[in-house]
Amino acid sequence: MPDPKLPSIPTLQDIRDAASQIDGVLIRTPFLPAPRLSRLTGAEVHVKYENLQVTSSFKERGALVKLLSLSPEERRRGVVAMSAGNHAQAVAYHAQRLGIPATIVMPKTTPFVKVEATRDFGARVVVEGETLAICQALAGAIADETGAVWVHPYDDPHVIRGQGTVALEMFEDGPPLDCLLVPVGGGGLIGGIAIATKALAPQTEIIGVETELYPSMRAALDGVEGVCGGNSLAEGIAVKNVGTLTLEIARRFVDDVVLVPEAAIERAVNAYLTLQKTMAEGAGAAGLAAMLDNPRHFRGRRVGLVLCGGNIDPRLAASIMVRDLARSERIIAVRVIIPDQPGVLADIAATIGTCGGNILEVFHHRNLLTVPAKGASVDVTIETHGPEHAGEIVTALATRGYTVERMAPP
Amino acid sequence: MPDPKLPSIPTLQDIRDAASQIDGVLIRTPFLPAPRLSRLTGAEVHVKYENLQVTSSFKERGALVKLLSLSPEERRRGVVAMSAGNHAQAVAYHAQRLGIPATIVMPKTTPFVKVEATRDFGARVVVEGETLAICQALAGAIADETGAVWVHPYDDPHVIRGQGTVALEMFEDGPPLDCLLVPVGGGGLIGGIAIATKALAPQTEIIGVETELYPSMRAALDGVEGVCGGNSLAEGIAVKNVGTLTLEIARRFVDDVVLVPEAAIERAVNAYLTLQKTMAEGAGAAGLAAMLDNPRHFRGRRVGLVLCGGNIDPRLAASIMVRDLARSERIIAVRVIIPDQPGVLADIAATIGTCGGNILEVFHHRNLLTVPAKGASVDVTIETHGPEHAGEIVTALATRGYTVERMAPP
Repeated sequence: MPDPKLPSIPTLQDIRDAASQIDGVLIRTPFLPAPRLSRLTGAEVHVKYENLQVTSSFKERGALVKLLSLSPEERRRGVVAMSAGNHAQAVAYHAQRLGIPATIVMPKTTPFVKVEATRDFGARVVVEGETLAICQALAGAIADETGAVWVHPYDDPHVIRGQGTVALEMFEDGPPLDCLLVPVGGGGLIGGIAIATKALAPQTEIIGVETELYPSMRAALDGVEGVCGGNSLAEGIAVKNVGTLTLEIARRFVDDVVLVPEAAIERAVNAYLTLQKTMAEGAGAAGLAAMLDNPRHFRGRRVGLVLCGGNIDPRLAASIMVRDLARSERIIAVRVIIPDQPGVLADIAATIGTCGGNILEVFHHRNLLTVPAKGASVDVTIETHGPEHAGEIVTALATRGYTVERMAPP
Repeated sequence: MPDPKLPSIPTLQDIRDAASQIDGVLIRTPFLPAPRLSRLTGAEVHVKYENLQVTSSFKERGALVKLLSLSPEERRRGVVAMSAGNHAQAVAYHAQRLGIPATIVMPKTTPFVKVEATRDFGARVVVEGETLAICQALAGAIADETGAVWVHPYDDPHVIRGQGTVALEMFEDGPPLDCLLVPVGGGGLIGGIAIATKALAPQTEIIGVETELYPSMRAALDGVEGVCGGNSLAEGIAVKNVGTLTLEIARRFVDDVVLVPEAAIERAVNAYLTLQKTMAEGAGAAGLAAMLDNPRHFRGRRVGLVLCGGNIDPRLAASIMVRDLARSERIIAVRVIIPDQPGVLADIAATIGTCGGNILEVFHHRNLLTVPAKGASVDVTIETHGPEHAGEIVTALATRGYTVERMAPP
C-alpha cells in the first residue's frame, strides 16, 4: 500500500516540464568526452560539467524549480533553507534573482567563505547550531514563525524533478550510455536522474556512489542501520539521512549503490585537475573515484560521470595536487647525515643540482640524537622527474659518501 | 608590392573549410557565460574552454588541419616539429591518429612530464639543445635528411586557418561580442581568429594580449626592437619572434595588442581556478589578466575570452592558490616572542584555537639573536577567515602579553 503521506514520485513529464522552466535561465552545462580519463580508466568516459553553473553545482536546478513552483503569496512570505554548502548558495542566488526573501541557516562549522558567498547573493544568513539537526530545528522554527516556505535540499518532488534535468541534457547532448555514475548524498540528484534515465534509456545502468564514511543510502536500501561519521573529503555527500521519497525512488530505479574509500576520492579530484583541467569538489569526483576503485566493472563500457560540483577549498585542492606529486615521487624528501663542516651543504646542493633535481626546501639540524655529536643532518625536499630520477639523486648523494634516508615529504 | 615569398593570407572560406575538416574529430569546446568573472570584472564575460581539448590546448586545430593538408607521399615521409609545449603534444597526438610518423624536437629545459606526454602519443622525441634556436636548426636538419614535412607552430596558412575555427564556434554558439581577447605568442591563434571575426562581425574589437616580458608582437607592430626575456608564468606566449605571415595578418585585422604584468596573469589563473573552477595555464589566462589589469576598458561590455590552454604545472597551480590565500590574509604567519618556559606554546595554541584560527605550521626557535637569551620565538602559520579575523587573532595574542610580529607567510 502506498504511504498516503508520501508525495508522489515525479514522472518523466514532470522532469521535462522542469527542463523547459530552467531553459535559458540556467547554464546548459557541457557534456563532453574526456579521452584522458578514458585512457586512465580503460572505459569511454563522458563528463557532465555541473561545476560550470554560476554557483558551481547542480543544486541550482532543484532550487530554481522549487522556487518557481511557489504561489505569489508564498513568494511574498519567502523561503528558508538549511545547508552548509551548495544548496545554500543555489537557493540564495535564485531567490535573489526572483525577488524572493530567503533565510539560510548554516551550522557554526561552515567555512567562512561559504557563509560570505551565500550572503553575497543577498540572503539573510543565520549562523547557528553545531550540528545539522540543531540547524534543522532552528530553520523549522523560522518557517513556523514567518510563514516562509521550507526548501528541502533533496526530499521534495520539485527539487527532484529539477535535478532530473541533468539526465535529459546528457541524453540530448551525448551518445547512449552503458552506465551512469551519480554521487549520492540525500538522493535528490540520483532520484531525478534515475527516473529520467529509466524512462528514456532503461538499458543504462544507474550506479549511485557514496563515500565509505557515509553509507546512508546503501544501508537504507539494505534495510540496515548505516554507520556514518568522520571527516570526509566529500562533505557534499556526507549525509546521514537520505530522504523518504528519494529512498523510494532509489529502490525502484537505481541499479546499485557503491561505496568508495576516501583515497579514491582524493585520486579522482587530482585526476580531474591534472588530466581534465577542471576543479571537482570531493562529492563531484565520487563517480570517477568509483571507476578508479573498481576499474574492472567499467572497462570497455561507455560511462557518463556527473561532475556535480566544484566548490572545493583552494588550500585542499592545492594540497591534493602536491600530495599526488609526492606519491608519484615527483617530490621527494631525504635526510642526509653530514659531518658538521663548512662546505658540506654546498656540496649536497651541487650534487642534487648536477643531477637535475630542483631543491624546494632545506632544514638543517644540529641537535638530533640520531646524529653523531659532531655531525648534523640536512632534510632536503627535491622536485624530480619521477621515481627513476629520484633514485638517481639518492644514489649520487650516497656515492659522495653521505648517509641518506628517504622520508615522507612534508 | 606583396612579398612574393609570403604565402597568401587565409580567407573566411579557408577557415570554414578547416571547420568542416575538424568537425566530429576534435572536441567542440564549450563557449559559456561566466557570471562570476563578470561580477569580478564588471563586464559580461564569456569563456571559450580550449583547455577541454584532449591535449588541453587549441593547438590541435592548426596541427590537425596542417596534417590533413599533406599528400599521401608527404604523409609517408612524416612530419617534424619543434616545441616545448602544447604544439608538441598536438602534433604528436594527431600524427599518431592519422598514422603519420612524427619527430618532435624539444629543448633540454622542457619539463619531463611534457616530454613523456609527447612520447605517450607515439612521437619520436629528440630532447636536444638549450635554446629554441638550436632546436629549430636541429629540426631543420632532420627535415632535410628525412624529407619530413616541417610543421610550424604558427607561421603557416593551414595552421592559421585551423586556429581560426575557434572564432567560428564562438560566433555560432554565443551572442555577438563587443570585444574578443586573444593571447598572442607567435600570432597563429589571433591571426585565424581576427580573419574570421573581421569577416563575420567587423564591429567586434580584437585585442591581442602578451606578457610584458615578451612584447614581441607589440614591438613588431610598432616597428621597434622588442626587449624579450625572463621567466614568465605564461611560457606558452613567451615567444621572441612572431611570424611573417601572422604579423601581416595582425597589421590588417587586429585592433590592438596590450601587455600585461606577470602579477595580473597570476591573479587571472587564480580567478579561473577558484571562481570558474577551471585550470588555465598562464598563457590561457592572459585575456582575463588584461581585464583585471585595465578593467575600465571593458566595463559594461560583452567580452569573449579564449582560455587557450590548461597545461600548467600542478605545483605551480597549487602555489598560486596558496599565495592568493596569503595575499587575502586567509593564511597569515606571525612570530611570537615568548619566555622559554613550559606551557607557553600550549597557551599560544589555545589562544589561536579559541579565536577560531586553524594552525597550519609551527616553528620553535631558541637561538635567534633577536630574542632575549632566556627567551625563544615561535613562528606560527594560521588559516583565518580573512583580514578582520587575522587582526582579532593577533590582538588576542598581544592581549595575553606576547610580542607579536606579522611575517610574510612561507
